[in-house]
Amino acid sequence: MNTDYSGYFDYASATPMSKEVIEAMHPYLSARFHNPSAIYREASQVREDIDEARKQIAGVLGVKQQEIIFTSGCTEANNLAINGVMSKYPDAKVLVSSIEHDSVLEPASEYTVAQIPVTSDGIVDCRAFSQMLSDEVVLVSVMYANNEVGTIQPLRELGAIIEHERKRRGLKGLPLYFHTDAAQVVNYLSLNISGLRVDMMSLNSSKVYGPKGNGCLYVSSSVQINPLVRGGGQERGLRSGTENVMGIVGFAQALVAAQATHTIETIRLRELQIRLIEKIVSTGGLLNGSLKNRLPNNINVCFAGVDNERLVLELDSKGFMVSSGSACHAKSGISSKVLEALGLDQKGAKSSIRISMGKYTTKYDVDNLSSCLLQLVAKSR
Amino acid sequence: MNTDYSGYFDYASATPMSKEVIEAMHPYLSARFHNPSAIYREASQVREDIDEARKQIAGVLGVKQQEIIFTSGCTEANNLAINGVMSKYPDAKVLVSSIEHDSVLEPASEYTVAQIPVTSDGIVDCRAFSQMLSDEVVLVSVMYANNEVGTIQPLRELGAIIEHERKRRGLKGLPLYFHTDAAQVVNYLSLNISGLRVDMMSLNSSKVYGPKGNGCLYVSSSVQINPLVRGGGQERGLRSGTENVMGIVGFAQALVAAQATHTIETIRLRELQIRLIEKIVSTGGLLNGSLKNRLPNNINVCFAGVDNERLVLELDSKGFMVSSGSACHAKSGISSKVLEALGLDQKGAKSSIRISMGKYTTKYDVDNLSSCLLQLVAKSR
Repeated sequence: MNTDYSGYFDYASATPMSKEVIEAMHPYLSARFHNPSAIYREASQVREDIDEARKQIAGVLGVKQQEIIFTSGCTEANNLAINGVMSKYPDAKVLVSSIEHDSVLEPASEYTVAQIPVTSDGIVDCRAFSQMLSDEVVLVSVMYANNEVGTIQPLRELGAIIEHERKRRGLKGLPLYFHTDAAQVVNYLSLNISGLRVDMMSLNSSKVYGPKGNGCLYVSSSVQINPLVRGGGQERGLRSGTENVMGIVGFAQALVAAQATHTIETIRLRELQIRLIEKIVSTGGLLNGSLKNRLPNNINVCFAGVDNERLVLELDSKGFMVSSGSACHAKSGISSKVLEALGLDQKGAKSSIRISMGKYTTKYDVDNLSSCLLQLVAKSR
Repeated sequence: MNTDYSGYFDYASATPMSKEVIEAMHPYLSARFHNPSAIYREASQVREDIDEARKQIAGVLGVKQQEIIFTSGCTEANNLAINGVMSKYPDAKVLVSSIEHDSVLEPASEYTVAQIPVTSDGIVDCRAFSQMLSDEVVLVSVMYANNEVGTIQPLRELGAIIEHERKRRGLKGLPLYFHTDAAQVVNYLSLNISGLRVDMMSLNSSKVYGPKGNGCLYVSSSVQINPLVRGGGQERGLRSGTENVMGIVGFAQALVAAQATHTIETIRLRELQIRLIEKIVSTGGLLNGSLKNRLPNNINVCFAGVDNERLVLELDSKGFMVSSGSACHAKSGISSKVLEALGLDQKGAKSSIRISMGKYTTKYDVDNLSSCLLQLVAKSR
């Protein structure tokens, strides 16, 4: 591992695995290969390793072990949450924010769905939400923080409104569940469920210095869901298929480490974030989304008149990796629906880039990026 | 990697990763971590690595690259095949063999389904199938070889009947698709599609000395399916989620290696299989399923009057790992539905064990197992 991350500013899209994660995964590359469902000792040990990983993650969230369902990533976890509830109530309604990831929007689009608007700051509009929360709504899905602009959503306030609505319905109406996609926040915000008022939470390994292809869905024991992937009955019948043991162990290690340092990393990166934003704004760049309610590693800026894809490629040629949108859409050439939901026109969206920092980002790296970036922007105008 | 596999006889349940697979995966543990959907060079290289893996697998099958959809394993691939077709024709019918894996049976059970019976040899009854192939059938799913008894299914004959029925329907009726779960065969039988007459085929990495949590579905370009996991649009929109690059590269390496040696491994293991079966049968054990149409690594035997779980645990204490059923069911204590479909009563099923060999199994290992096994059986009667 002699990798240079100094030009890497796309941590919101992918994170390198940490040394500790690789070490934790190592035994599963060779000796510990057994199928955890077999009954001989070696297999039982592998089963125990999965249980230990589950216990670690449940501990971080402050929930019961059996409330953690391992999946192949956050996209699958989001699909499981939405389909898992909505397939039980196919005639009911789901509310999602207008800036959700496609892995929420697309499964929701299979049912009756309405989008909760966001303010120009990129924060879900609680008042509008309150009005939209009609009797037929059974599920609300609002992300913990947005993947493109890093805006942190008011889960507690939304949760309070949901709680109130639940009380109003009493035992008569539909149940009402609250799901959040927490893929982007693990390195910076607490995942402790008791403070969040959510019933389901999707998590991703590949954004927290863990292996790709892993994640989980927290499902409160009070929520009944249908499985998405059926078969051998693993994960209490809610997610079949031989467990990706190596990935699960690596994911748990990564999640615990990320949560252990989330406060100190927030303080450190917040300083770098402000430093970078000040330089960008002083030369005419415009910050997209709230500065205050924002993940400390995200800077999404609009340089009016600049083509974002060209800028990303020019930065690449200078050794800097940033994004022209979420990675999922970077190749499509489509302008960001998230930025349009914030009120930017298509031109503004096509002039915006996302810079995302991470645990290997230093002040020196940030200063190098900002000089290069501002030179390129000045030249291209 | 100094692992001793001499007592391991559960290769049908899990395989250790080969040295070459681990080496192929190594770069993705550290330097090559980028999100393949990003547009900078490092990410494009990772994208090319996925494309190369897809090309390798497509080459082995003799199909087009875009016909390979990477999944998190064979269970997901089976779910994708069944739901992918049946959700397009929710009022149509699916036929599955009575000895399919639960990852076929369970998604099929969400639709109108009928089970094709098998003979006492564990082979799908083609005549019965022919009669069951009514106008409303849109999908047939029959495994290439069974996971418990290793019986190889007559895909070509079934395919010929399906082809005939397609011609009969002409352009007027429903389409008719043929899917096979090929998880168990990759080390021993050719995957070349042109000889198999199937439209879809599920494959698994963890049974072919590749990493767990990976697999793929071959979908002929003539078949239209709906995705199971929706979102970012990866895998041509048929399987969203950031790709498990390390797993995909390891899987492709493993699959190519397994297919390169499938003929020679079949000859080698067939000899060991006959040797072991002869010893077992000479002391009163009964082979479950056809000897002739059988994978060369599988021995499923009934020892009348012996409790299979107890036998598995006794063998474990002597250093031998075998299975009391498929791994997925080993823990449930439920007797095998596959063995019951072959005509065994519950008592017979609860007296049967599965011994499965693999590339590290030697004649010496087999002889050690057979002495120990026959001693234990003699003692427990």
